[in-house]
Amino acid sequence: MDRVRPRVGEGKVADYIPELARVDPAQFGIAVATVDGGLYVAGDAGTRFSMQSITKVFALALVMSGSGGGVWGRVHREPSGAPFNSLYQLEFEGGVPRNPMVNPGALVVTDQLLTDTGGASNALRELLCAEAGAPDLGSDEAVARSESEHGERNRALAHLMADFGTIHNPVAEVLEHYFRQCSITISCEELARVGLLLARHGRRADGSQLLSRPDARRIMAVMLTCGTYDAAGEFAYRVGLPCKSGVGGGILAVVPGRCSVAAWGPGLDAKGNSVTAALALEAFTDVTSCSIF
Amino acid sequence: MDRVRPRVGEGKVADYIPELARVDPAQFGIAVATVDGGLYVAGDAGTRFSMQSITKVFALALVMSGSGGGVWGRVHREPSGAPFNSLYQLEFEGGVPRNPMVNPGALVVTDQLLTDTGGASNALRELLCAEAGAPDLGSDEAVARSESEHGERNRALAHLMADFGTIHNPVAEVLEHYFRQCSITISCEELARVGLLLARHGRRADGSQLLSRPDARRIMAVMLTCGTYDAAGEFAYRVGLPCKSGVGGGILAVVPGRCSVAAWGPGLDAKGNSVTAALALEAFTDVTSCSIF
Amino acid sequence: MDRVRPRVGEGKVADYIPELARVDPAQFGIAVATVDGGLYVAGDAGTRFSMQSITKVFALALVMSGSGGGVWGRVHREPSGAPFNSLYQLEFEGGVPRNPMVNPGALVVTDQLLTDTGGASNALRELLCAEAGAPDLGSDEAVARSESEHGERNRALAHLMADFGTIHNPVAEVLEHYFRQCSITISCEELARVGLLLARHGRRADGSQLLSRPDARRIMAVMLTCGTYDAAGEFAYRVGLPCKSGVGGGILAVVPGRCSVAAWGPGLDAKGNSVTAALALEAFTDVTSCSIF
Amino acid sequence: MDRVRPRVGEGKVADYIPELARVDPAQFGIAVATVDGGLYVAGDAGTRFSMQSITKVFALALVMSGSGGGVWGRVHREPSGAPFNSLYQLEFEGGVPRNPMVNPGALVVTDQLLTDTGGASNALRELLCAEAGAPDLGSDEAVARSESEHGERNRALAHLMADFGTIHNPVAEVLEHYFRQCSITISCEELARVGLLLARHGRRADGSQLLSRPDARRIMAVMLTCGTYDAAGEFAYRVGLPCKSGVGGGILAVVPGRCSVAAWGPGLDAKGNSVTAALALEAFTDVTSCSIF
Repeated sequence: MDRVRPRVGEGKVADYIPELARVDPAQFGIAVATVDGGLYVAGDAGTRFSMQSITKVFALALVMSGSGGGVWGRVHREPSGAPFNSLYQLEFEGGVPRNPMVNPGALVVTDQLLTDTGGASNALRELLCAEAGAPDLGSDEAVARSESEHGERNRALAHLMADFGTIHNPVAEVLEHYFRQCSITISCEELARVGLLLARHGRRADGSQLLSRPDARRIMAVMLTCGTYDAAGEFAYRVGLPCKSGVGGGILAVVPGRCSVAAWGPGLDAKGNSVTAALALEAFTDVTSCSIF
Repeated sequence: MDRVRPRVGEGKVADYIPELARVDPAQFGIAVATVDGGLYVAGDAGTRFSMQSITKVFALALVMSGSGGGVWGRVHREPSGAPFNSLYQLEFEGGVPRNPMVNPGALVVTDQLLTDTGGASNALRELLCAEAGAPDLGSDEAVARSESEHGERNRALAHLMADFGTIHNPVAEVLEHYFRQCSITISCEELARVGLLLARHGRRADGSQLLSRPDARRIMAVMLTCGTYDAAGEFAYRVGLPCKSGVGGGILAVVPGRCSVAAWGPGLDAKGNSVTAALALEAFTDVTSCSIF
Repeated sequence: MDRVRPRVGEGKVADYIPELARVDPAQFGIAVATVDGGLYVAGDAGTRFSMQSITKVFALALVMSGSGGGVWGRVHREPSGAPFNSLYQLEFEGGVPRNPMVNPGALVVTDQLLTDTGGASNALRELLCAEAGAPDLGSDEAVARSESEHGERNRALAHLMADFGTIHNPVAEVLEHYFRQCSITISCEELARVGLLLARHGRRADGSQLLSRPDARRIMAVMLTCGTYDAAGEFAYRVGLPCKSGVGGGILAVVPGRCSVAAWGPGLDAKGNSVTAALALEAFTDVTSCSIF
Repeated sequence: MDRVRPRVGEGKVADYIPELARVDPAQFGIAVATVDGGLYVAGDAGTRFSMQSITKVFALALVMSGSGGGVWGRVHREPSGAPFNSLYQLEFEGGVPRNPMVNPGALVVTDQLLTDTGGASNALRELLCAEAGAPDLGSDEAVARSESEHGERNRALAHLMADFGTIHNPVAEVLEHYFRQCSITISCEELARVGLLLARHGRRADGSQLLSRPDARRIMAVMLTCGTYDAAGEFAYRVGLPCKSGVGGGILAVVPGRCSVAAWGPGLDAKGNSVTAALALEAFTDVTSCSIF
């Protein structure tokens, strides 16, 4: 907190939809959940914020547990070297997204999840509620509606993939689920608990195994190489942990086998990652020497 | 060995210079060196091969130890999402390479090394000899000459960077050092010992500290996100260790704090990584459960 | 005809929608209409075919006559050097299409036409009917419906431009008009007569002036540099006349001040231009020495 | 002159080499040479300036006359849609330049000219002297030397093409000829007379035929679609004549069968074309209604 406090309020709050633009930038929270049940919090760790792209990790986890990784034929797992909503790689690479952490890749995962669950949209919400120990997690309907109204770029991505045959369900349906997924709200405390799913290598809070140990590792590998968009290399260099960020200002980091860290600050840098959450994670690895390297 | 043996000979030996094209594809070796002094070898672990891009890791280590990381103003540390000898990103990104593991980035590192050492070219060779315990390591002069004769693409990269002011020393001089660096030959045994420099977080064989612990971690982070070109995501997913490959068919992997693994097989896949060495590393993490995730 | 006959049937009929794929490839027609009222025809000059992108010329003419060229703030007039349905330039160039002859540029023109006419879609059809002397010209409804059903790529283009603010009317409405516009059918005879509008430098069949003389020249300049997609340079080199092609297999060429030539053959080359129509126009300029150069 | 005078001095003098940067921006000249022997001049029409890329037209003319167009296998004739010294298209398109008017294409033409003439570099200078009626035309040696010293970008282009096999002669030799070719100085009067070679459809001042009539037309077609770099569409739209510009500030335009216009003003716009020369040509076609459309 000492290191982050002077910079709280820095960055630019996401303003592509009015609902996110209204968030007070002068907030910051962090929570650490350990695999042995500890929970350490500071700042606004109990305030809920928009999960946005952080949901992509858990949608991928569900798909990998459910359809045996069948999604991999339609999405690669390479860093994109491009912004998260970029189209040009799709155009040149046969409509197959670079990885499941950029928007087009996440749309493919949503598409697969719809197929796997027969259209039922609640699978992800239920997973998050159970792992967070918070049965009332859900979408912010105003945000979801606004995402849809201002979702021209995502519509372009989805139609382009439909043209290539990468999306199988109706485009409008996939987008609707995707927008609702992104608009789920969660607090740092809750998110840190959810992140334990990965820190425990796929074991759920109730002791059952959602993912095999290798699959949990693979998801963390994808987070490290692709989880913070075109700043993934910089995060690996400076933080040294698998991370996933969202434009709501949250970042989830995992120390495999040990703990999960959720940090949140609404102000974003030029690449769409939270300024203070990134700073907090860098401080965390400095202080604790927790690093996968 | 059991897993790799049936596929020895697969892939396409690098043929951009005649000297590499002549290497017998039916070879494979692997060596594991542990931080407590163990050495485990199999196959052609004593045969020397052309280090090529694997040298990039240690040139970077020298520069980070020598000039305080001053090289970072002229090279980013993001995955490129593009082939290792690609030019277009340089053109669009002000002549600053994406990372020190692709050719243009390595040329910048060489340029910095020339500046740091006042033009003395022996720093890298001396480091490798000392860590490998093999005073006779050196460049294969025929390979170096051939690299230079067929080095039109690297010349194009260097002149383009010179146009942007990214290269400070004379282009011809930088290229000459780079070609000689790439043509150093080494065996798996020797390379595994050299890799301990990173596994020990920067401590040299003689007990002195070349790199600070955080800098050693950062180099491994760069290896993980950028060390196997545009297959870095796939390597992280399948192997889960920081790796660096070379078109000579070698791959170096590091398990931080524990050991270093060097594998070699001359046949390459479409992205320039050794087919059998990649397979061997995947088998290694499967069998040992060594993974940073 | 003698030069073209041996190659009738060559090329690949457009197959992105079933309605076009069913067209018999073994057809060819040509018509020349002169400014002094002559009409010369050969082959299947009376058979109607799908105008497709050739309509773009006349939609642009209407917009330039109607809104005083106000469309130019939202579309450039440079050759794209890229396929007609490409997205990447839009992404990198702020959502502003390179020219009105590629699909995204034509969508902007349609958008402007909707604004200019208050949504009335008949302006273009009426112009074509009047100039062709054929009151029954109209859209093929089956083609229009099929364009819409298979129009994912155009939807992606339109949504991407909407994201950038280049499209002002509702995306679905713009697309619907665009698909109906493309599906208008016309014969070579009729098209050659319509083309006189440009050959007469903007004067209509009824003697009134639709376009100023400079604007007519400018439209022909846009045809020459952009009218045959990424083969515009080749057409200028080989044919030497302003041309506009469509994936229905038609090509319209204009000899300013003298005549208009419409050729049609359904088989397309790799860039989407009719093989036989291109050949016929090359033969035409060879034989007549008609060239703007 | 009246239209141009208020804007003389506008634009930015080319400053990539000191010799060009020193040119006084407050100069402007124009000359019109007619096929029947007339010559009309205004302003600084007798002052010599650096021809630069305008030489590309006449190097191409020599190659088309000499080697029967054999150069076309190694250079396309499509607008590039990219800056004149861009590399990325070469990388993606097999090392074959888009057209002979961008730098890499001109290097291929120079390479062919070297092959055709057995290395004799004087062919171009002799052609220009003869057509201009000025036996003392030649390279400005200080400019040529400076081009070579600051020619990193052109070196990158040439080495990249050598890597693809597009350049056949030694790279250094091709570059040296290219730099000397670009540095030839000429006045508007002289250049207008040289331009008559095209206006007369290939006939030289001495009555002999350098180019066939179709080849002369083809060169003008290449000028129209590619002669003013990524502003070719705009020039066709606004000027409506085949033009070729150079960073020395000159632009040559041709009215086929009638006359040749040379305009010069050192200040360039963002795309590298002279501000005042472009303005003068636009005024010329406005006033005279000379246009190929």
